[in-house]
Amino acid sequence: MNKTATRQPKLGVCYYPEHWPESEWADHARQMADIGLSYVRIGEFAWSRLEPNPGQYEFDWLERSMDVLGNAGLQVVLGTPTATPPKWLCDQMPDMFAIDEEGRRLGFGSRRHYDFSHVGFRDECARIVTKLAERFGHHSALTVWQTDNEYGCHNTTYSYSPVALAAFRNWLAKKYDSIADLNRLWGNVFWSMEYRSFDDIELPNLTPAEANPSHRLDFLRFSSDQVVLFNRVQVGILRKLSPGHDIVHNFMGAFVEFDHFDVGRDLDISSWDSYPLGSMERRVDVSDDHKSKYLNQGDPDFQAFHHDLYRGTSNSRWWVMEQQPGPVNWADWNPAPLPGMVRLWSWEAIAHGAEVVSYFRWRQAPFAQEQMHAGLTRPDGSPDIASVEAAQVAREIAALDLNVETGVADVALVLDYNSIWMSNIQPQGKDFDPIAICLAFYSAARKLGLSLDIVSSDEDLSAYRLILVPNLLHVTDSALGSLAKTESLTVFGPRSGSKTHHLTIPDALAPGPLSALLPIRVERVESLRPGIEIAVEGGSVSKWREHLQLLSKPDQQRCADDGTPIAVRYGSRTYIAGWPDDALLSAVLTNLAHAAGVPTHALPDGVRLRKMGDKWVFVNYGRSEQDLSHIIKQQQILMGDGPVIPCAGVLITTAA
Amino acid sequence: MNKTATRQPKLGVCYYPEHWPESEWADHARQMADIGLSYVRIGEFAWSRLEPNPGQYEFDWLERSMDVLGNAGLQVVLGTPTATPPKWLCDQMPDMFAIDEEGRRLGFGSRRHYDFSHVGFRDECARIVTKLAERFGHHSALTVWQTDNEYGCHNTTYSYSPVALAAFRNWLAKKYDSIADLNRLWGNVFWSMEYRSFDDIELPNLTPAEANPSHRLDFLRFSSDQVVLFNRVQVGILRKLSPGHDIVHNFMGAFVEFDHFDVGRDLDISSWDSYPLGSMERRVDVSDDHKSKYLNQGDPDFQAFHHDLYRGTSNSRWWVMEQQPGPVNWADWNPAPLPGMVRLWSWEAIAHGAEVVSYFRWRQAPFAQEQMHAGLTRPDGSPDIASVEAAQVAREIAALDLNVETGVADVALVLDYNSIWMSNIQPQGKDFDPIAICLAFYSAARKLGLSLDIVSSDEDLSAYRLILVPNLLHVTDSALGSLAKTESLTVFGPRSGSKTHHLTIPDALAPGPLSALLPIRVERVESLRPGIEIAVEGGSVSKWREHLQLLSKPDQQRCADDGTPIAVRYGSRTYIAGWPDDALLSAVLTNLAHAAGVPTHALPDGVRLRKMGDKWVFVNYGRSEQDLSHIIKQQQILMGDGPVIPCAGVLITTAA
Amino acid sequence: MNKTATRQPKLGVCYYPEHWPESEWADHARQMADIGLSYVRIGEFAWSRLEPNPGQYEFDWLERSMDVLGNAGLQVVLGTPTATPPKWLCDQMPDMFAIDEEGRRLGFGSRRHYDFSHVGFRDECARIVTKLAERFGHHSALTVWQTDNEYGCHNTTYSYSPVALAAFRNWLAKKYDSIADLNRLWGNVFWSMEYRSFDDIELPNLTPAEANPSHRLDFLRFSSDQVVLFNRVQVGILRKLSPGHDIVHNFMGAFVEFDHFDVGRDLDISSWDSYPLGSMERRVDVSDDHKSKYLNQGDPDFQAFHHDLYRGTSNSRWWVMEQQPGPVNWADWNPAPLPGMVRLWSWEAIAHGAEVVSYFRWRQAPFAQEQMHAGLTRPDGSPDIASVEAAQVAREIAALDLNVETGVADVALVLDYNSIWMSNIQPQGKDFDPIAICLAFYSAARKLGLSLDIVSSDEDLSAYRLILVPNLLHVTDSALGSLAKTESLTVFGPRSGSKTHHLTIPDALAPGPLSALLPIRVERVESLRPGIEIAVEGGSVSKWREHLQLLSKPDQQRCADDGTPIAVRYGSRTYIAGWPDDALLSAVLTNLAHAAGVPTHALPDGVRLRKMGDKWVFVNYGRSEQDLSHIIKQQQILMGDGPVIPCAGVLITTAA
Repeated sequence: MNKTATRQPKLGVCYYPEHWPESEWADHARQMADIGLSYVRIGEFAWSRLEPNPGQYEFDWLERSMDVLGNAGLQVVLGTPTATPPKWLCDQMPDMFAIDEEGRRLGFGSRRHYDFSHVGFRDECARIVTKLAERFGHHSALTVWQTDNEYGCHNTTYSYSPVALAAFRNWLAKKYDSIADLNRLWGNVFWSMEYRSFDDIELPNLTPAEANPSHRLDFLRFSSDQVVLFNRVQVGILRKLSPGHDIVHNFMGAFVEFDHFDVGRDLDISSWDSYPLGSMERRVDVSDDHKSKYLNQGDPDFQAFHHDLYRGTSNSRWWVMEQQPGPVNWADWNPAPLPGMVRLWSWEAIAHGAEVVSYFRWRQAPFAQEQMHAGLTRPDGSPDIASVEAAQVAREIAALDLNVETGVADVALVLDYNSIWMSNIQPQGKDFDPIAICLAFYSAARKLGLSLDIVSSDEDLSAYRLILVPNLLHVTDSALGSLAKTESLTVFGPRSGSKTHHLTIPDALAPGPLSALLPIRVERVESLRPGIEIAVEGGSVSKWREHLQLLSKPDQQRCADDGTPIAVRYGSRTYIAGWPDDALLSAVLTNLAHAAGVPTHALPDGVRLRKMGDKWVFVNYGRSEQDLSHIIKQQQILMGDGPVIPCAGVLITTAA
Repeated sequence: MNKTATRQPKLGVCYYPEHWPESEWADHARQMADIGLSYVRIGEFAWSRLEPNPGQYEFDWLERSMDVLGNAGLQVVLGTPTATPPKWLCDQMPDMFAIDEEGRRLGFGSRRHYDFSHVGFRDECARIVTKLAERFGHHSALTVWQTDNEYGCHNTTYSYSPVALAAFRNWLAKKYDSIADLNRLWGNVFWSMEYRSFDDIELPNLTPAEANPSHRLDFLRFSSDQVVLFNRVQVGILRKLSPGHDIVHNFMGAFVEFDHFDVGRDLDISSWDSYPLGSMERRVDVSDDHKSKYLNQGDPDFQAFHHDLYRGTSNSRWWVMEQQPGPVNWADWNPAPLPGMVRLWSWEAIAHGAEVVSYFRWRQAPFAQEQMHAGLTRPDGSPDIASVEAAQVAREIAALDLNVETGVADVALVLDYNSIWMSNIQPQGKDFDPIAICLAFYSAARKLGLSLDIVSSDEDLSAYRLILVPNLLHVTDSALGSLAKTESLTVFGPRSGSKTHHLTIPDALAPGPLSALLPIRVERVESLRPGIEIAVEGGSVSKWREHLQLLSKPDQQRCADDGTPIAVRYGSRTYIAGWPDDALLSAVLTNLAHAAGVPTHALPDGVRLRKMGDKWVFVNYGRSEQDLSHIIKQQQILMGDGPVIPCAGVLITTAA
Repeated sequence: MNKTATRQPKLGVCYYPEHWPESEWADHARQMADIGLSYVRIGEFAWSRLEPNPGQYEFDWLERSMDVLGNAGLQVVLGTPTATPPKWLCDQMPDMFAIDEEGRRLGFGSRRHYDFSHVGFRDECARIVTKLAERFGHHSALTVWQTDNEYGCHNTTYSYSPVALAAFRNWLAKKYDSIADLNRLWGNVFWSMEYRSFDDIELPNLTPAEANPSHRLDFLRFSSDQVVLFNRVQVGILRKLSPGHDIVHNFMGAFVEFDHFDVGRDLDISSWDSYPLGSMERRVDVSDDHKSKYLNQGDPDFQAFHHDLYRGTSNSRWWVMEQQPGPVNWADWNPAPLPGMVRLWSWEAIAHGAEVVSYFRWRQAPFAQEQMHAGLTRPDGSPDIASVEAAQVAREIAALDLNVETGVADVALVLDYNSIWMSNIQPQGKDFDPIAICLAFYSAARKLGLSLDIVSSDEDLSAYRLILVPNLLHVTDSALGSLAKTESLTVFGPRSGSKTHHLTIPDALAPGPLSALLPIRVERVESLRPGIEIAVEGGSVSKWREHLQLLSKPDQQRCADDGTPIAVRYGSRTYIAGWPDDALLSAVLTNLAHAAGVPTHALPDGVRLRKMGDKWVFVNYGRSEQDLSHIIKQQQILMGDGPVIPCAGVLITTAA
């Protein structure tokens, strides 16, 4: 994988010409260009305007809007409108609606009202995408296609419908040699859950007790594959009819319902929709104190985590497709960003290699569901704060040379969707959240000033100097190969290697195949209710704790108060037998970074650093200014007024 | 509107002769008369006894019970039994049941098992009401008719059934010129939600994301109108067949599912069911500390608020139809009132102009759902505490002349159901409860000893000296006219004027049409999670905060710690750009009251005052006695043992 | 009832031969025997292996497994597999699935997917049980039959299906003389809920307001009876075809959906599945502090309570059928027992008279729903901690003579399922949990070192010296007879006698028929929200408080701060008019125990004592060792290292 960023970053915006009088379009375009935007995403919810009646295509207005934008020097990202099928289409095939886990049909009236498994609807999508590609595939303003919008948003990945059931049975029949094979691998002898044919299999919802976890896991895999398939149909059409144009999809944060590596492989560019304040408010794994501390800034690591994650899904090419510009409408509470935060978020994305940062949206809509969602301009067209900050970012980019060759980061964090699904299906402790433990490892490393890549489990890891594996429950053969091959210092979180492909326990117990690398055996696991902490040398563990049998003497270990080992190091590999707090993680990672020769930095509270080639980009999520002299030392300040970084500030330095 | 109370108040009780042996009726009636009751409500749940089989009317027992009551000198309030259709009727038309938001049919087995939109059921109601009116419309004991019972109780206003859908489509087709008109006004271009005909429109439930807020608002309006229509059918029959008798319905507290001004207009008298302890326990906007402090008394402002609200819905004629007499059965916890509280609640209602305070119920039922609901007498017939207190109230009334001409209050509070629905549809902050902010303004004024009227937004406001507008999101032309015309000091809460009739944002942003009165523009709004407080001179705001652009220099302003304006006064109008705490509200209102020449009073904790013409009625919701000498001064004490008001005490004074 | 334990206790284990290669069976059996186990339960989930296709019986493997076990000297408990009907059977009769209260059909994919009222399924169960009994009814290894598994687990007792409705109507038609009778006894005149025929009656779910409590109560009784009937069919077959073998069923803890006395009467032996850690975590009536304090031990009284309860359901013969051996998988959090706790739990059960303590399960399954549930051995076959502790218990049993004649305990606690259902249907206070108040009385007595029997309300109580009646809402004639006959000191909890058989209020108010024994009358009840405590001499009451009228002067009383009586004693009977805290209960019970001549013991925190004939068995649930010298005094120590009992320790003494 080519870990580089070699383009000067650009800014963009999301725009809905159909929401505004055509007479204003040219003015909008000029304003966009004036503040330094380069890209404009349009079209992704406009099906009812593009085809108001069956087969009656109304594409002229879209062409005119693209002309207007192109004439203003803007490049167009054109979205396929498949997230919002019009009412007449739904009436033609009422079984295209998904059915939720409780058995309720979710119908027309908002968006994403479709079942990924509905073949008829998929065909309709192919039809409209074909028509759009034929008409606009060579438009001069067109640069990038976006497929659909936010796959899976509003819990729409999973459907418990008859069409999903039929597709699931087919998927299983292809995966397994025979029904006997499936019965054996799922352990269906348990509770007499055995099937006599693939047509016996039901969906894993609405059962008196929980359904078989192997059954549930395959249903999640199937559902992820249906997203991949749905996307691939559109990608195939666009590649054929509009060659030379990149294809992107906009992912979401803290969303794991499908395997983003799988979808990303079919795209040229991954992107995601970054809403720091809304996302933090929604998280249940974050304390109220943390939410109050970062109320108007967002969690200091959440955005960077996703930047690094999605950078890893499409060969290092990635965008922020939707950047929060002000208060949103969809969290329980919706505060405003501190002045400067929109600029900070933009620069942070650039520091992590974003090709484009695109704000959502140009003008706040005065109507419908998102009318309380701020934009770069207000509903009356007046510029909102974010447009001033965006313009500043544009000027700042122009003043710097950011065609930086970055290479891979010092540190890799391995993230595996199959393992995440396994953790979620059987968390064993109610608050065992696999994304939260990945974020805990990520955050601890970031607080030490480390820069990371997030990679899938089957990636070649040899280029990294430190590897974090927080939640790899299932270790595939290829993952084992990569992990075995590298001499890099590697640290594994609890539950590593504890499950097979079918979400069963390995014959030799956890850490399963990793026992080839780590001479330990997990004899027992406990999950711990909130408030229970096990003191460990250097910190503590909570939520989860394992009891290890050490098959040989470790090179190093940290023990719990009762003398049992929690963190053990054998050669280059360390295993942590519990959910570590920040202090313990920091202690372990500091040691390992020093051993690996990776420099760490004592970053003040709220400050984060991303190294971008020879440039160091500091951001300050805290409310207080911080003096960075001790870190910057002799470096030259490229952007910023000195070594003191203000609240919501950005500071860029380079080797002197 | 004629704001007067010119009748000597009376007491009443709710009674179910069908629950008791006929041989005991005369004894019950005698006891009622003995303790000083004048009115007895009967009949409102008795359909299965009035028509045990289809078309077989059994009215004789009811006539005998009315005779017995009349012979004891009691006046009858006769309820129509339409809240409890019998099983055989439901079996005839099983689609008469409502379907809830989750798609579940709610059937027979309790009460209110009907869909307001079911024409067949409405016809059946007309039939039974006609029969009752024909038979009893001129009975000598009959005084008042009550329609149905507690419209909307148990979340029954809204139905998501096929019959509701059909009626909704008709309602929309009448309201909008064309489907294009509806699409434009709802903003259906957003997310391709456009319809091609009124028959395309679905109900706004069970959608993957939230449905269009304009769609939801019209559904709430439609549902409210269905209640109005349902009630009007009965009113029409009763007016025709039983002329000269007042018609009443019993509303509920903290209930906003329909527009009570609209229903009230068709009635002669509004009434409500006042359950101070149960209501407080159920509220989610009240802290546990407050609930503990007033555990056995109820919130000191909740009852008065509803007295003033419902007094405003039927030309100032209003009753308490059901007064809590002891512990109820339906809150999560059901404590007992302090000794004296039933008397206090009764007197407070009288002070606010109630013509009748009617206790629920005469005798506690030993069976069925409400068997743990206290009455004036216990299930064994022995008098419970409340009957002693009711008798005391009756004696006290008799000892005073309460034919008081009151006129309008000094202060008006504007309450608008459309605005409440808008706030509830898009609260933007999870705890933005429109009733809570109205109560906050109301309570702050009450603590200053002010007496209020609660009025609808299209009322003439010129007679008031101080006007509170806590939550008027939508300002109609007539409301704007009233607000513009008056020179009275007016204070607006946050979000005022922020929405159009269709729940969209006004072209010129908030405060929309109010910008003609207030030279400000709301540039940004934030909702704030619990625990976040913005300090403001004189208090603080929480939950909600706006950022104002001041288009001219205000005459007076209070700023937040960061220097931004929160409360601004221009001439007679003040705007508060956030959800104020009690201290801030008190500071603002004290200033305005003084400016308006309205006297305020430093009421001790827990004490409230209602002025009733020249009479001042003090009540003490607190647990400690309080000395009121500094307020009473030279006034003459009409009722009470001196200037010290005991716990749960009532003190009445008059100009010396 | 014969309250004795005269057999030497044994140990057992649950085992699933179908989960493991047949080649390993003999080895497993040998290991079981080696650690001292005597009983092995098998077969209860194996229907799909016993009848893989309709009518194709595959019993040979089961016979071979029984042979293997028998050859190792083990005795077999054979379970009927009716909790897990195979897929093909469900496909034959899809209406055999239960429908939950929300109207959702709960289908195949886990276990207990059947409706107790489905006659076709009951016939299928009879068929497979008949076949099994015919084949294995005289097998030499067979000792005990178990019917089904954990009736009602996963909320499966109640079904709201058409088949349940039909059966319910029949049940009602048999119970009531006429529909008029039912209408009168349920109070259906209320809200016009009257029926014209039994075929009018619906199930009491999905109504706008709550359904009639009498209706709900009869539905609970019906549902309990359906369980009794379902079980009785199997018992009948087994008694006939396999005479001489005991029949058992395994009940659960804190589970009251059916009347265990009723089911128990048809069994030879009652048993229950004891999971101290999982059960405590699941309880909502236990504070977080308590859960943390006993995190790895379980509540000190919960297990003993159920031992004593289920000992009372089958003529004193009882087992622990499933004993928690390590972390389980089904609570929100699943910690591990402290070392020694499995031994402690085993000994505690023995002290309470268990004939057999059987661990769940032999070997942790590596697959399916319970793969995170520990066993005596790990998934790889290695012994887990519990197997070491089980072996120790086996050795310890062997070293003692435990053929002890115990007789009845000093203290009886009366538990009545009808009263529990009444409390649950109308708790009146959200946290009025009838099991919690029974546990509160039980625990207070246990902390005083008392040993208890738990008995049904119609039992002869004359042999007891102290009788606790915490929650007897409904006092039957026979209960009244027993309570009237005995001279034993008796203490009644709040709500005693407050309801009739039909869940209505007695004519003369509470305590209803008990007023013959206690000259009091309950004038008013209050439920109190969390945080509200009423101070009483010697302690306090919370949650619930009654106001008593004393019809004569009590011999003794404890009053609340306001002077009203809370605990009153008349002769041998004491009534507590509220939910007492531990201090108040302890004070009351200490007094009564002394008056009754029952010795109490000042047990240290966490220590409990059960007297087993002349043997005293102490267990220490606390984390600190405790010196018991002051209690043991001159007693001889039979097991244990001296008078100091360690954490998780067991100490057995006998009269010197």
